[in-house]
Amino acid sequence: MASVARDSCMVTFLSGGTGTPKLLAGADATFPPSETTVIANTGDDVELGGHLVCPDLDTVLFLGGGELDTETWWGIADDTAETHEELLAVASDAGMTAGPRYLPADAQTSGREIARWRRFSGVAEFMHIGDRDRAVHITRTGLLDEGNSLTEVTSTLAEAFGLDWRLLPMSDDPVATLIHTPEKTMHFQEFWVAEGGEPVVDAVEFRGGTDATATDAVRAALSEPVVIGPSNPVTSIGPMRAVEGIEAALAETTVVAVSPFVEDEVFSGPAAKLMEASGYDASTAGVVEAYPFVDAFVLDGGDGTDVGRPVVRTDTAMNDADDAARVARAVAEAIEVAE
Amino acid sequence: MASVARDSCMVTFLSGGTGTPKLLAGADATFPPSETTVIANTGDDVELGGHLVCPDLDTVLFLGGGELDTETWWGIADDTAETHEELLAVASDAGMTAGPRYLPADAQTSGREIARWRRFSGVAEFMHIGDRDRAVHITRTGLLDEGNSLTEVTSTLAEAFGLDWRLLPMSDDPVATLIHTPEKTMHFQEFWVAEGGEPVVDAVEFRGGTDATATDAVRAALSEPVVIGPSNPVTSIGPMRAVEGIEAALAETTVVAVSPFVEDEVFSGPAAKLMEASGYDASTAGVVEAYPFVDAFVLDGGDGTDVGRPVVRTDTAMNDADDAARVARAVAEAIEVAE
Repeated sequence: MASVARDSCMVTFLSGGTGTPKLLAGADATFPPSETTVIANTGDDVELGGHLVCPDLDTVLFLGGGELDTETWWGIADDTAETHEELLAVASDAGMTAGPRYLPADAQTSGREIARWRRFSGVAEFMHIGDRDRAVHITRTGLLDEGNSLTEVTSTLAEAFGLDWRLLPMSDDPVATLIHTPEKTMHFQEFWVAEGGEPVVDAVEFRGGTDATATDAVRAALSEPVVIGPSNPVTSIGPMRAVEGIEAALAETTVVAVSPFVEDEVFSGPAAKLMEASGYDASTAGVVEAYPFVDAFVLDGGDGTDVGRPVVRTDTAMNDADDAARVARAVAEAIEVAE
Repeated sequence: MASVARDSCMVTFLSGGTGTPKLLAGADATFPPSETTVIANTGDDVELGGHLVCPDLDTVLFLGGGELDTETWWGIADDTAETHEELLAVASDAGMTAGPRYLPADAQTSGREIARWRRFSGVAEFMHIGDRDRAVHITRTGLLDEGNSLTEVTSTLAEAFGLDWRLLPMSDDPVATLIHTPEKTMHFQEFWVAEGGEPVVDAVEFRGGTDATATDAVRAALSEPVVIGPSNPVTSIGPMRAVEGIEAALAETTVVAVSPFVEDEVFSGPAAKLMEASGYDASTAGVVEAYPFVDAFVLDGGDGTDVGRPVVRTDTAMNDADDAARVARAVAEAIEVAE
């Protein structure tokens, strides 16, 4: 593999919550941060206890700020959880039910527009929110309520955390990833955090997608070469594709994707089940089918999938920054091949 | 003074944030908790960072639960403040202004109705909120958003904290204590917490009072003998009097008040300045004039004010539970005298 220095080219990463952040963690030598934009998925966001929680934006924010808990790939390292624990204690002492507590139906489409269809009470908080982490959600929500867009707010938070990348939410409009199961429709965070990804999935819906539009900042970033790390094609990249303007931009620009599978083995997360519920094979072949706009793929050395498009192979397992640097170099090579 | 055991009589205390809680802290032997209702002022409440903060309710809640920080008479003893400190750090790192950040004018009358006219962004949080304390605000706000009244929510929180008193908010409707100064109109918490009570006060307004009504629970409680501790007559008791039904009920029932002054010396807080701005002498004489519905007063032994109504005198300084017990006994005696 050539050692490609891309120090004069802008590049844009599309990021979910784990696969692409792991790649970004070792990408700096290949993709200088000052020339790198990261567009994060916001379909997983919830309003919890009155605050907009943006897990994928926050993972990139904390990673870039050197604060990420890289055991879990969410939250701030060594954060305390005094408030969270007290929320559980208060609820327990008063005999209140734990688990996700959706606000009433009429509240799901009132209040902050960006929080539509995923508004939860903070009673017995069903997601673990650390104390410093919570300050980010409070600041974000305060700035939104003061009249700023999520793009503007994210820029302010990126400044606070000293990010060298440019970080953008995929849209300033609400898109909610909803999981349809035989019993009920639930937000992705109920499916994943509260239910451990166990329910049978009939379909995945990106509610709001048809009315959501890409921001000018996202459109501009998508005119550069785009990298899709080994993210979940359905719940990390799917919400972005649902936003008006994004899929069309991907069709126009150079796009390289790292498969989150080695043939039919997935590295982590709920990708396999969600791929199948969305009508794709849970495999690299399924990813290739799901990503018609990708110009070149980075596959694991052990992945023999016949892709029909240019491929660069490397060891795609990423357990540390050196692994990530290796995959980043393969991505740069794939961009060269694709352009 | 007779040692009066009131173990078969219901009694209702009207409470602000310091004077009456200090009395309650030693009142149990005279006023059995199971027969005691506490109605707390909610004019000082704010919505801060999306959460309804009710300082006077919380002081009673934490006192009754044995959790109150009795150095400050607000907050939970030994609470951490990780989130609060991070809010200040994030704001500082991003160059954002500290101090009270009111939400835009149109947001002051939208959102949760109970938070009207006192809605603040959580950016650079201008009030000190501890981590466990915050869990109370999140739970309260979550239960409100789930569709419960503030009275119902307060009952749930009282259960969580194991209160033996019955605790009621003065109303389920919004009343906001606003301070008119020559320069601007500010919420009481800006005046007191952010400005240290320094601004010149032209007038005190209880916005919303004309539309707020007493709950059935408050009306029932006000049919029992009522005790007004040495609370601020303007900002602790004034908001209650602005609520439709409360002043009329006070005129009907037996009411005993402990003066927060010794002649013209006030024990603590901003009472003097606010009394004068409201057209009263900053003295026991002013309190007597301000409280036409009070049937008997408890005054300090050194207070020679000619009240024109029945008076019981004791040392009204309260520095510990024994002091409070002494004042409570004087209150019981005053009720006997007044009835």
